[in-house]
Amino acid sequence: MTLWHDSLVLEPKGSGHFKAEISDAWNSGSQPNGGYLAALALNAMSLNTPFPDAVASSAFYLSAATVGEADIEVKELRVGRTTASYEASITQGKLRTRVTATFAELGSTSNGIEFKSDLPPTLSPREECVRFPHKLESGVPLRISEHVEMLINPNTDVENAQMLQTAWWRFADGADPDGLSAVLAVDSFIPVVFALGVGTWCPTLELSTHLRARPAPGWLRVQRRTRLLSQGFFEEDASVWDSNDVLVMQSRQLAKMGV
Amino acid sequence: MTLWHDSLVLEPKGSGHFKAEISDAWNSGSQPNGGYLAALALNAMSLNTPFPDAVASSAFYLSAATVGEADIEVKELRVGRTTASYEASITQGKLRTRVTATFAELGSTSNGIEFKSDLPPTLSPREECVRFPHKLESGVPLRISEHVEMLINPNTDVENAQMLQTAWWRFADGADPDGLSAVLAVDSFIPVVFALGVGTWCPTLELSTHLRARPAPGWLRVQRRTRLLSQGFFEEDASVWDSNDVLVMQSRQLAKMGV
Repeated sequence: MTLWHDSLVLEPKGSGHFKAEISDAWNSGSQPNGGYLAALALNAMSLNTPFPDAVASSAFYLSAATVGEADIEVKELRVGRTTASYEASITQGKLRTRVTATFAELGSTSNGIEFKSDLPPTLSPREECVRFPHKLESGVPLRISEHVEMLINPNTDVENAQMLQTAWWRFADGADPDGLSAVLAVDSFIPVVFALGVGTWCPTLELSTHLRARPAPGWLRVQRRTRLLSQGFFEEDASVWDSNDVLVMQSRQLAKMGV
Repeated sequence: MTLWHDSLVLEPKGSGHFKAEISDAWNSGSQPNGGYLAALALNAMSLNTPFPDAVASSAFYLSAATVGEADIEVKELRVGRTTASYEASITQGKLRTRVTATFAELGSTSNGIEFKSDLPPTLSPREECVRFPHKLESGVPLRISEHVEMLINPNTDVENAQMLQTAWWRFADGADPDGLSAVLAVDSFIPVVFALGVGTWCPTLELSTHLRARPAPGWLRVQRRTRLLSQGFFEEDASVWDSNDVLVMQSRQLAKMGV
């Protein structure tokens, strides 16, 4: 059992409820990682769906989850011939996170027509990249960097000016990535706009992830970008490519500027 | 009363339920517009929230809605000091659309730090643009084009190659745009990948919209782009600028290739 899969274990309690133990392994500061929370909810949905891939998911973060026990309740919204949709609520006394998702089977409905316009980003060799720190300058610990190797492309003027960052990403214990770990990958980093002084904790309101392909074994490459920080909010888009140069995930989150 | 606001009228039925009359005015083919359905749900939420702006919204399309009567049920997920979140279910016997959204007040938490990297697209003058058709080549009527003026930037090789399209957009009756009409605007057009022969009806699984500013009166400019069509699915991102060159909305949808 890898640490990631161990962190996703769910104990069925009946009537669509599961007991989960929210791990501190993926924390930034004292906060459980938002991508990890979404992956927990998607994992609970996946236990009873006829389709393997969480192609579309949207997580709303309603109150700050804490490390430790949580209840996850899954409700079926619709099960159709080619897709199935669910909602999941992560609760710790209070509702923490609400996730809605649609599952399907990638590739099953393709008629062979394909189009891709984005090439994977060109990254410096891993030995020239900058290791994601174990803590912020403020001293806030980033425990996730003990369990994920994140190697940031050395900053270029272009990337800095565009509020764009690219990085290599893999589990430190050698586990291969799957669709759920891509949801962790897009939310593993510090927001690129932290460089502008937006605060040290910017709560995510919503995170949507679209799984476009199942990742091949090996390193992922994650590119993140913010186009607009305004009126107290900013978005962050992430794209994830696998070791075969396939775009496996697109995500977008809206976050509130820290105070 | 403008046609748009007339289309959003809700009759309170108690216990969070509203009766809606889904208009055919925004149809593409026989299908009610997905952005319009999301706007109906957001409008129902807005009647009882303390915050004016639906900053983050995600709509899952579960079964095909039809023109005519529908029930919309709103449930409160959390009301906090600066944000409030709700879910809304649009039902016609069967659950049609589930929308989750967080409301806030744009600008209320800003500390003045701003960043923007995307300039509004350069569009040809409106008299040189191509009017969105009243029907598809296949004969499918696009009733929305009777009620919205959509003027497509004449195709350039660059835009075609990038599966990108930009257009002017405004209500035909002269109504000024608001946050809800931006949700209609992002979903008003034919998917840009239709040119590749993906089918004539590509159902949207999920549409997420982030309202970044309240639109100023006047024309909107909408830019839409698909980066990946693969394994039977494609995404479409849209950005909307108002007449003051402000980016007012970012949206993303995942759709299934038609059969």
